[in-house]
This record gives sequence, C-alpha cells and structure tokens, in this order.
Amino acid sequence: MFRHIVLLKWTDDATEEQRAEVARRLNELPGVIPEIRTYQIGLDAGVNQGNFSFAVTAEFDSPEDYVVYRDHPAHLAVIEECIAQILAARAAVQYAL
Amino acid sequence: MFRHIVLLKWTDDATEEQRAEVARRLNELPGVIPEIRTYQIGLDAGVNQGNFSFAVTAEFDSPEDYVVYRDHPAHLAVIEECIAQILAARAAVQYAL
Repeated sequence: MFRHIVLLKWTDDATEEQRAEVARRLNELPGVIPEIRTYQIGLDAGVNQGNFSFAVTAEFDSPEDYVVYRDHPAHLAVIEECIAQILAARAAVQYAL
Repeated sequence: MFRHIVLLKWTDDATEEQRAEVARRLNELPGVIPEIRTYQIGLDAGVNQGNFSFAVTAEFDSPEDYVVYRDHPAHLAVIEECIAQILAARAAVQYAL
C-alpha cells in the first residue's frame, strides 16, 4: 500500500461554510476515483496552538494510483474551487506502507 | 480513537545518519509509552517536489492519552536530541476518529 497524507491550514478569514464545503467535496472523491482504497478526513481538535486545520489520509495500491488521484480532474476541481481560496499553508508526505 | 499526525521537513544539510536516528529513536517510544495504541513512521517517497520529509501517525484512546505522549520525557528527549537540530518545518493535526 501507498499512503498519502496532506495537512492544510486555512486562512483566518475562512468561513465555516467554506471549511465544510472542502470536507463535503473531498468526501465525494472516493465515489469518483476508483483507485482510492481508503480516504479519511480529520478536522483539527484544537488541542494544540499553531496546528494546521485539516488532514487527509488516503491509501492506494501503488504510487501510480496515487498519481491518478493527484491529477484527477475531480480532485483538481476541489482544489481550484474550494481549497485554493482559503489555503494558508500545505504540508504533504507520501510513503510506502 | 484519537489520531495525531505530524509532518516534519528536514534541513537541507541533515545527514542520512541524523534522519535515521530520528526514526530509530521514535520507534522506541511505543515500548516506553503505554498510552500509544498504534505508531507509524513514513519517509517521503519523493513522488512530489516540495513535500515534507517525514510523517508520524499515532493513535490513542483519548485526547488525554495523546497529551501524555506529547509531554512524555522520552518523547521530549527525541525532539530535543535528534529532531530540533535538523527541523526546517513542522505541521500537525489531531482529530477524533
């Protein structure tokens, strides 16, 4: 398996509606991109100051399948239409399990 | 369950020995901190430019158990003795599963 983790930090002026729309739209992707094996979204619990806002953990059979997800038009549409407007910072790692 | 994800980026001059020492020392923590339920380390596979270097995903029964790990002397020792010297950037999220 090949795991993708991305952590996103929203801008201070991101609304609750904008944050919820990102989660809603991303959660549609497993139904659209068959290469996704597992897909999990998490909203930061607020235990620590300075944390990022949002986590996505996804698993794929291979790096190639991850790239299909990365470059899929449905995924790019969520980035362009929902994420880009409220993105303050991004951190990502992919690794083989 | 309560999940902790942290992504770390190493400085450009971090050596292979320093990177390996972080992984080795962190992997000792599940044997020392009984609150840790699962603990997984990942080294970035190099698929994407600009990625962070290193991922830790850990699961706990509760936010309180995560805080035990966060503040445990054995964990703080790894941060102080191994991670701080080569840390260029850090991103973290904790969330309830």
